[in-house]
Amino acid sequence: MKVVTLGEIMLRLTPRGFARLVQAGEFEARYGGAEANVAAALANWGEEAVFVRKVPANELGQAAVNSLRAAGVDTRHVLRGGERLGLYYAERGADRRTGKVVYDRADSAFALSRAEEYDWDGIFEGAGRFHITGITPALGRNAEAVALAACKAAKEHGAAVSLDVNYRSKLWGKERAAKALEKLFAYVDVCIVNENHARELFGCSDERTLAERYNFACVAFTYRRTQDALHNSIWGSLYAGGERVLSRRYEMEMIDRIGGGDAFAAGLLYALGHGFEPQKAVDFAEAASCFKHSVEGDVCFASAEEIAALCSGSGGQIER
Amino acid sequence: MKVVTLGEIMLRLTPRGFARLVQAGEFEARYGGAEANVAAALANWGEEAVFVRKVPANELGQAAVNSLRAAGVDTRHVLRGGERLGLYYAERGADRRTGKVVYDRADSAFALSRAEEYDWDGIFEGAGRFHITGITPALGRNAEAVALAACKAAKEHGAAVSLDVNYRSKLWGKERAAKALEKLFAYVDVCIVNENHARELFGCSDERTLAERYNFACVAFTYRRTQDALHNSIWGSLYAGGERVLSRRYEMEMIDRIGGGDAFAAGLLYALGHGFEPQKAVDFAEAASCFKHSVEGDVCFASAEEIAALCSGSGGQIER
Amino acid sequence: MKVVTLGEIMLRLTPRGFARLVQAGEFEARYGGAEANVAAALANWGEEAVFVRKVPANELGQAAVNSLRAAGVDTRHVLRGGERLGLYYAERGADRRTGKVVYDRADSAFALSRAEEYDWDGIFEGAGRFHITGITPALGRNAEAVALAACKAAKEHGAAVSLDVNYRSKLWGKERAAKALEKLFAYVDVCIVNENHARELFGCSDERTLAERYNFACVAFTYRRTQDALHNSIWGSLYAGGERVLSRRYEMEMIDRIGGGDAFAAGLLYALGHGFEPQKAVDFAEAASCFKHSVEGDVCFASAEEIAALCSGSGGQIER
Amino acid sequence: MKVVTLGEIMLRLTPRGFARLVQAGEFEARYGGAEANVAAALANWGEEAVFVRKVPANELGQAAVNSLRAAGVDTRHVLRGGERLGLYYAERGADRRTGKVVYDRADSAFALSRAEEYDWDGIFEGAGRFHITGITPALGRNAEAVALAACKAAKEHGAAVSLDVNYRSKLWGKERAAKALEKLFAYVDVCIVNENHARELFGCSDERTLAERYNFACVAFTYRRTQDALHNSIWGSLYAGGERVLSRRYEMEMIDRIGGGDAFAAGLLYALGHGFEPQKAVDFAEAASCFKHSVEGDVCFASAEEIAALCSGSGGQIER
Amino acid sequence: MKVVTLGEIMLRLTPRGFARLVQAGEFEARYGGAEANVAAALANWGEEAVFVRKVPANELGQAAVNSLRAAGVDTRHVLRGGERLGLYYAERGADRRTGKVVYDRADSAFALSRAEEYDWDGIFEGAGRFHITGITPALGRNAEAVALAACKAAKEHGAAVSLDVNYRSKLWGKERAAKALEKLFAYVDVCIVNENHARELFGCSDERTLAERYNFACVAFTYRRTQDALHNSIWGSLYAGGERVLSRRYEMEMIDRIGGGDAFAAGLLYALGHGFEPQKAVDFAEAASCFKHSVEGDVCFASAEEIAALCSGSGGQIER
Amino acid sequence: MKVVTLGEIMLRLTPRGFARLVQAGEFEARYGGAEANVAAALANWGEEAVFVRKVPANELGQAAVNSLRAAGVDTRHVLRGGERLGLYYAERGADRRTGKVVYDRADSAFALSRAEEYDWDGIFEGAGRFHITGITPALGRNAEAVALAACKAAKEHGAAVSLDVNYRSKLWGKERAAKALEKLFAYVDVCIVNENHARELFGCSDERTLAERYNFACVAFTYRRTQDALHNSIWGSLYAGGERVLSRRYEMEMIDRIGGGDAFAAGLLYALGHGFEPQKAVDFAEAASCFKHSVEGDVCFASAEEIAALCSGSGGQIER
Repeated sequence: MKVVTLGEIMLRLTPRGFARLVQAGEFEARYGGAEANVAAALANWGEEAVFVRKVPANELGQAAVNSLRAAGVDTRHVLRGGERLGLYYAERGADRRTGKVVYDRADSAFALSRAEEYDWDGIFEGAGRFHITGITPALGRNAEAVALAACKAAKEHGAAVSLDVNYRSKLWGKERAAKALEKLFAYVDVCIVNENHARELFGCSDERTLAERYNFACVAFTYRRTQDALHNSIWGSLYAGGERVLSRRYEMEMIDRIGGGDAFAAGLLYALGHGFEPQKAVDFAEAASCFKHSVEGDVCFASAEEIAALCSGSGGQIER
Repeated sequence: MKVVTLGEIMLRLTPRGFARLVQAGEFEARYGGAEANVAAALANWGEEAVFVRKVPANELGQAAVNSLRAAGVDTRHVLRGGERLGLYYAERGADRRTGKVVYDRADSAFALSRAEEYDWDGIFEGAGRFHITGITPALGRNAEAVALAACKAAKEHGAAVSLDVNYRSKLWGKERAAKALEKLFAYVDVCIVNENHARELFGCSDERTLAERYNFACVAFTYRRTQDALHNSIWGSLYAGGERVLSRRYEMEMIDRIGGGDAFAAGLLYALGHGFEPQKAVDFAEAASCFKHSVEGDVCFASAEEIAALCSGSGGQIER
Repeated sequence: MKVVTLGEIMLRLTPRGFARLVQAGEFEARYGGAEANVAAALANWGEEAVFVRKVPANELGQAAVNSLRAAGVDTRHVLRGGERLGLYYAERGADRRTGKVVYDRADSAFALSRAEEYDWDGIFEGAGRFHITGITPALGRNAEAVALAACKAAKEHGAAVSLDVNYRSKLWGKERAAKALEKLFAYVDVCIVNENHARELFGCSDERTLAERYNFACVAFTYRRTQDALHNSIWGSLYAGGERVLSRRYEMEMIDRIGGGDAFAAGLLYALGHGFEPQKAVDFAEAASCFKHSVEGDVCFASAEEIAALCSGSGGQIER
Repeated sequence: MKVVTLGEIMLRLTPRGFARLVQAGEFEARYGGAEANVAAALANWGEEAVFVRKVPANELGQAAVNSLRAAGVDTRHVLRGGERLGLYYAERGADRRTGKVVYDRADSAFALSRAEEYDWDGIFEGAGRFHITGITPALGRNAEAVALAACKAAKEHGAAVSLDVNYRSKLWGKERAAKALEKLFAYVDVCIVNENHARELFGCSDERTLAERYNFACVAFTYRRTQDALHNSIWGSLYAGGERVLSRRYEMEMIDRIGGGDAFAAGLLYALGHGFEPQKAVDFAEAASCFKHSVEGDVCFASAEEIAALCSGSGGQIER
Repeated sequence: MKVVTLGEIMLRLTPRGFARLVQAGEFEARYGGAEANVAAALANWGEEAVFVRKVPANELGQAAVNSLRAAGVDTRHVLRGGERLGLYYAERGADRRTGKVVYDRADSAFALSRAEEYDWDGIFEGAGRFHITGITPALGRNAEAVALAACKAAKEHGAAVSLDVNYRSKLWGKERAAKALEKLFAYVDVCIVNENHARELFGCSDERTLAERYNFACVAFTYRRTQDALHNSIWGSLYAGGERVLSRRYEMEMIDRIGGGDAFAAGLLYALGHGFEPQKAVDFAEAASCFKHSVEGDVCFASAEEIAALCSGSGGQIER
Repeated sequence: MKVVTLGEIMLRLTPRGFARLVQAGEFEARYGGAEANVAAALANWGEEAVFVRKVPANELGQAAVNSLRAAGVDTRHVLRGGERLGLYYAERGADRRTGKVVYDRADSAFALSRAEEYDWDGIFEGAGRFHITGITPALGRNAEAVALAACKAAKEHGAAVSLDVNYRSKLWGKERAAKALEKLFAYVDVCIVNENHARELFGCSDERTLAERYNFACVAFTYRRTQDALHNSIWGSLYAGGERVLSRRYEMEMIDRIGGGDAFAAGLLYALGHGFEPQKAVDFAEAASCFKHSVEGDVCFASAEEIAALCSGSGGQIER
């Protein structure tokens, strides 16, 4: 099934090992972003994934496109132009030292792009799903309008719309976020949201209330408990058809904290696209999230078989 | 005591840190192989260790020889010729992501070498022990014949023969392995085998049965429980003189999963060569194995004093 | 214009900096091969480039595919299966120390693939050009048959066929090479060959003789003079329509010696595809070759604008 | 003598070795900027160098400050606040492949800072010299006002003002640049300018005309000829007291192309501060510039003794 | 408050990752030493920190000075001369493999410096505190005399003196250490000591006994339990004004074991300088120590806000 | 032929690429020394090379031994004990920036070893040649006595003695050097010396005078002209049997400047050991020296075939 995603992709600069940003004499360079990570994971698993955005017509924009193409993502609808590629610095935490993200993403080519630049008909031709996150409307008026236009076009082309709330307090306040997201909710079929954000933004402590209030076909909640910078536990829920199921809970020793939620979203879309039962769906999604935390970079570099094996309880033995 | 080992040595390519193979822009290059690792550990501990095999007459063959010489192994009996050095790619696992080994070792110079190329008399002159693993006969008809010839020559020169079963399902099936190994068992004094392989290949669930069936002087079983990719527990047993002793059990946080069994074998040979009592012998062997898991690469880079200190219960404090 | 290429892609392992192979504790990992490099360069320049071969269904095969996708190459027709990805070790030379290539490419998945595995109709549908090199038939009987089948299919679908002789003495002898290549010549429109190989394999010291003997529409000769490992001079010729033109001659200080001929071939195909006059065509091809020598890796990572600028005589100033 | 400099400092991201930006999996991180480089060179040579600007109150701003402090620069007058640290990507060229700089410096904390934020009296107390470049007013209205305020304050505190024109076509057009710079010229005693920019912006082909038109006490021209990306020749002139002297000309094989002009400026300020004769002054400045081209990074990491030794004709022998 | 520290600074050479010293093909280079680490931490937190010692007048001495300047330490009173910079090799441990420090610090420029070389009046002008550790007198007769002279001068200038016992068995015996330290105790107000060293050197098992015997205003004990090379628990006590308070206890997963005690000392000095209550003081000190263990290198690279946040119980969440 | 060498081996610390020492965040670690380099080159070429010295009984001493064993050198006569391994920092130069060596080698285990610690009879049993350089007696009284004892023992066992003057002004003055070396000359058969040192130390401008004065069987002069830090020209002479021959002259672009003289010495010993004619001998020696300059590290990692090929005029072409 063709899945369209639209959103930002940024250069991610990470110091080597556990070096702090002020100690860093070199940075690992990777490219990622919430929706881009979803597209890359889906492509890794053999899905037809289309990623849409605007990147500057320079070497950095090209490198971002190349990284998606390497994963098998269809980037034909990426626009070129504008001034800059957004970027962020990610410092890995350890023990009680908190991981840190410093954003430098204002005024990116995508954030300033306009809805009419995109060829919505070409983009959504034959698309079965469209995925977006709350980060896109958080990037400013232009990006909000692009997000809205994309949701509308998706619906008109018969694609199911999924939205991951992905609230970022460094980008906008709760009230503004809730207001903007509610405009998009009108088009949304599947809503993914962290349990705390559901409560803080929309006053909903459970999946059912949220689903009913906004008329979502499915709602998935993600849960995370933080023991320290490298040890978290995660699990998820899925509410669909009046029923709520909970995934297995993973106590993790993490390699890379970023992109776990995007892997959950990708896993859920994959599962829904393949007609998995709710329990199997949320288990696949959570296994994808767990797996991602053991992989460097934003993207869940794994095969669908590896995720399925993790669902079946394997994990950790050496294969030889 | 002069210990002869015969077997494969390969180039091992490992991505940096926790990168997956598909993400790797560079590989760490090390050289190792089951029997070579045993020889290097013994040489590290001051033993006279001779390693025998055939390597191609090119830069890669030379680099493999150099790595053994650096550890103090006597490589005068390594032959030159043939087409290629075998290699394998080793992806480090983390959390529930399984470590991976991709072999590319078919048709190596050693696998295609013939028994008559080796100077068995020179090799075994003055040798007290000969060590081999089940990987060598798994490499093909030629290597199987070389293994058999070596065992025979060892016996003729009065060397005690030890064999580590080291079953690899990617190389051969259980039935074929059992059959080939049983041919070698006729010459074997000391047999080392993972508990599961003892049962699956030879239907023996305990050391004594195995020892009696094949008339081994000693049998050591190795045990491993996998919590996740970086956390395992290991212990071992030794059956000798009608008695069975168990080593201490180690709960490990591992740095490098590969070569742990080879360090056990080396530790056992060292202990037997120095006339350790069975309990002390299996404790030394298991301590060597535990220590190896905390060292990068295939080889147990440690001094005999460090292994002995670990046996005595030390470990973890900084020395300064 | 859609350009199809068929051939090998290998893992290239290069020691850091100027380290020799026996000194190397790590290798840079890149993926390349003569025809793959042509495809990647063309894709970099915006052409529709399709690359066809078989890779093993493992992580290394996937990484090779990803590297081509990153460059924008269409890899939908790459088959999966077989045992291994070929590889080669490349030691960079310096001053009078000769650069070295150690091949380990026998029995690769591609070399053992059979002509009937490929979907020739799908591959050549709408193709304007097909490109192959002399390395492919050198890989063995199977690969030779695949090469022949591909040339036939290309012709049947109306694609112009180009062949780069690319003689490698480590792969086969001159006589056998000449014989095998002559079988392919029946389908070839554009022949590219190093001046020495033209003489040594086919006894032709000039382009015209070669063109007339084998009825080629175009013949390009490449010339190289070696001052030392990092300083070469190169130029090229093009014989077409009864006329011979010579490119500008470049005295180069090289960063990476490998892939220069492939960049020439890609440049020539690009030029012919865009209808450049012979002089402009050979100049563009030689500029691409020169540019490649200043880029790390096998592939000419450059834009068509950069090649054109080099043709116009620019080069070396910093842009800021 | 206390020398005050005011200007931008940016994160510089450089791919390893000769990798192109689109190939880069990691970047070396350094901090530099035209005026910051001058301050660091002077501090290296034992001068009291004060650097003034505004950096964001985050880890990147701190790292920029640390890098200057390491060189011995006084950073007490650096303000904290604003949104972002400017950055640029620098791709090293080779042979005919042009080096590339991609700027991402718009809306930096410094570019948006206002003149009244700075404590001009504290900054210039006891200062003998003030140095600025044409890049600062090119950053926008705010920065232009800051530059003007700084020049005025410098004059009021009796400091001699030097200005390096440093025209950057990617930042502004020639006409706008000329106009803005002429406003600053009213305060300038020492003007440094590339020969071409002198002609293109101010229509002056020689030092004397420029000095007389704007009433400069000294004018230095810098000359550069580009053979290729790694080979340039450079020399300089100094016009002072009615006389023009030319420095020695250096044919260079360069390690790092960036910061050569800043080293010239620093060398000239050092020479003038120590009362060198014009010939010795321009020779010292040009030697500093030459030396810088052999050092990685923006800053001329060298001692004053090393520069003096280069002036005396030494260079290249190993010291041991 | 101006805090003066006096002591050694050395080059620290650390193999990459978990490599053992005999495996290391490269070393990370950092500069540190007990008192230098205290100075750098205090400067990181905004204190005026002065570091005093002698370094050789070569590139290594300069690099050591630069590293302190980068952290904001005032190095104006560092002397230049003598023969060599001391150095040490630090091998990171893992699991039961013990971390190792190999010193090569004899006859350093500082160890051989004489008390009369230092400008004590300039150094202590306006100083509120002076800090030293037991390592300095352990370096030899000269260094012992320098330590004594510094303590005297500190007292004469009204600075409170703190001493961290920091006993190192590789440098001297217990008896000699106790004797030398007792000479310094006459000037000491604040004594920091590991519980075991308090007992083994001075026969004191509790803080009060030590405080009363030597008339210290404050005594802090540090406690450490070692689970393995990467897992320790630490806590501390503070005895002041007749009362003893205990800090929170931290179970840590460590990144870098070295410098934890220095961070405790810095934290205590910071707390005392800011008039924290004893409980808050020891909590801040221990939090600084805990934080340091999660940072690479000897120095606690952290802001005072980060330490305070850790005291308040936060830790481990990602900030974005 | 068994060749014994005796001398120092040190840790060499080299910043990455062209970084200066004060910029270095990491060092490449290699082990080398004048006589050790000779031994390693000879072992690379298949000779039986024995290296004698004392190293500390710690990890650094072991690493130095391992590096020689890797090259195939016999290290059985290396003593263990003493305090430290000498080391040096080597900064690579570029263009007119001079390469730099900072020594930290005083009081090494070898420099303080005593002649009676060595088993001279075991060392020289069956030895055909003994090689030493002027660096050894420069290390102090003990080392001078060791050098003398070794020369005597060599002579008594019938080994030919070769000495490379290798004058280092940072270690001793010319007068003291001349005096100490003349004591050794009584035992020397083959003397190698830089043309300038021959004149400055012994007042000899030509080989013959030197040979006759000290009764040397052979004298080789080495010549070097320095264009810049990376471009030198070198050639050599050999005076033997009343005849003087000159080698080919090499204009080099160098990768690593250190160890070129040691490669010349090794080449000469190899040539003399194989009975080459004088012209062929000096050509082989100079080719070895030239080759070494293109290899990273102190040691001439090359095969005898590669040196011979360079003598025959090849060089620079890629082999594939």
